[in-house]
Amino acid sequence: MRIAVLGTGSVGRTISARAAELGHQVTIGTRDVAATLAGDYAAWTAEHPEVGLATQADAAAGAELVVNATSGSGSLPALTAAGAANLAGKVLLDIANPLDFSAGFPPTLTVQDTDSLAEQIQREFPQAKVVKSLNTLTAELMVRPRQLADGAHSVFVSGDDAEAKRIVTGLLVSFGHTDVIDLGDLSTARGTEMLMPLWLRLYGRLGTADFNFKVVR
Amino acid sequence: MRIAVLGTGSVGRTISARAAELGHQVTIGTRDVAATLAGDYAAWTAEHPEVGLATQADAAAGAELVVNATSGSGSLPALTAAGAANLAGKVLLDIANPLDFSAGFPPTLTVQDTDSLAEQIQREFPQAKVVKSLNTLTAELMVRPRQLADGAHSVFVSGDDAEAKRIVTGLLVSFGHTDVIDLGDLSTARGTEMLMPLWLRLYGRLGTADFNFKVVR
Repeated sequence: MRIAVLGTGSVGRTISARAAELGHQVTIGTRDVAATLAGDYAAWTAEHPEVGLATQADAAAGAELVVNATSGSGSLPALTAAGAANLAGKVLLDIANPLDFSAGFPPTLTVQDTDSLAEQIQREFPQAKVVKSLNTLTAELMVRPRQLADGAHSVFVSGDDAEAKRIVTGLLVSFGHTDVIDLGDLSTARGTEMLMPLWLRLYGRLGTADFNFKVVR
Repeated sequence: MRIAVLGTGSVGRTISARAAELGHQVTIGTRDVAATLAGDYAAWTAEHPEVGLATQADAAAGAELVVNATSGSGSLPALTAAGAANLAGKVLLDIANPLDFSAGFPPTLTVQDTDSLAEQIQREFPQAKVVKSLNTLTAELMVRPRQLADGAHSVFVSGDDAEAKRIVTGLLVSFGHTDVIDLGDLSTARGTEMLMPLWLRLYGRLGTADFNFKVVR
């Protein structure tokens, strides 16, 4: 697949490198290509020449699947820069969490309970096929789940489009996920986004991000 | 221990029967003893003569540990009826969730993100030693966790008083819990209460309440 990953941070890089490793054609989207290359991205891209870099609009325009790997507050601006026309009809895998760190740790949520970031994105880009997933675990485990307990833990998908969820589920399975739970429509993303406060406290308690939830049943 | 369980519903009954089975002296607290005995509680109490029934105030007065097994909306009224003096200095195990079903399913939360029901209770009854726990799984698994995957799943405790958490943890272990995670102070209850939206969607998706989260690490 041709995949655009919006977000040049560690999450975007981790997903991009793994997707490229699996044979996908990956382009990272950024606000400003020159500025990104002037930062620590330069060293990373030297080690990952197989991953392209382009503006958010160019990256999205050429992609079949777009990954929102920006921060919660950066999501709508990044997607707006990518452009509604470049997202129309495409799978938009939203892995962001609506965290507000402005008051320190632990962060609060900018949206919760009766709405979610995923739904905000879907409303803003009604022609995109938004699927929420991967937002409940650390980046390395998103793409290499077998590194923890040989993959014996769970990941969730939420979305209104069955075919888009099927495509995302296929990508997750290719990453190594063994327990992909389809929660239902996109409003179920409220539940996974609201898992963040517990995740963050566990992170503090366990002293590592290398953990995940398993739905034992 | 002498334990008061506030709440005559299925959760309160399940906890009471199990605690009594383990040798504790258990009294269920209710608003109106006569009214409770006039309902379906009569058949239950006939099968569980070892569990006492009293007003919330009388039940709490005689207890060392008080369990809040009421609904979220019923919690503060029930505890107020129990009386601050009867809760002072005691472990108050809060297992309720602040669910609002007034708009149908799925329910929303009456408090979240920057506050929690557990903290509301603690503020209202500052002399009680509030410990949040058991609110993340179905009643039968609260008290018989070994029925699912031989207990290979997790339960959380949150609270400001270390000794109270130690007492609650001991009770949980006696129920059969093998992975009791102390999240930290009572504000960490926000995380477990906010797990409810995901729990409820999983309940709908799996078609059973017989599941639980395991923190794989």
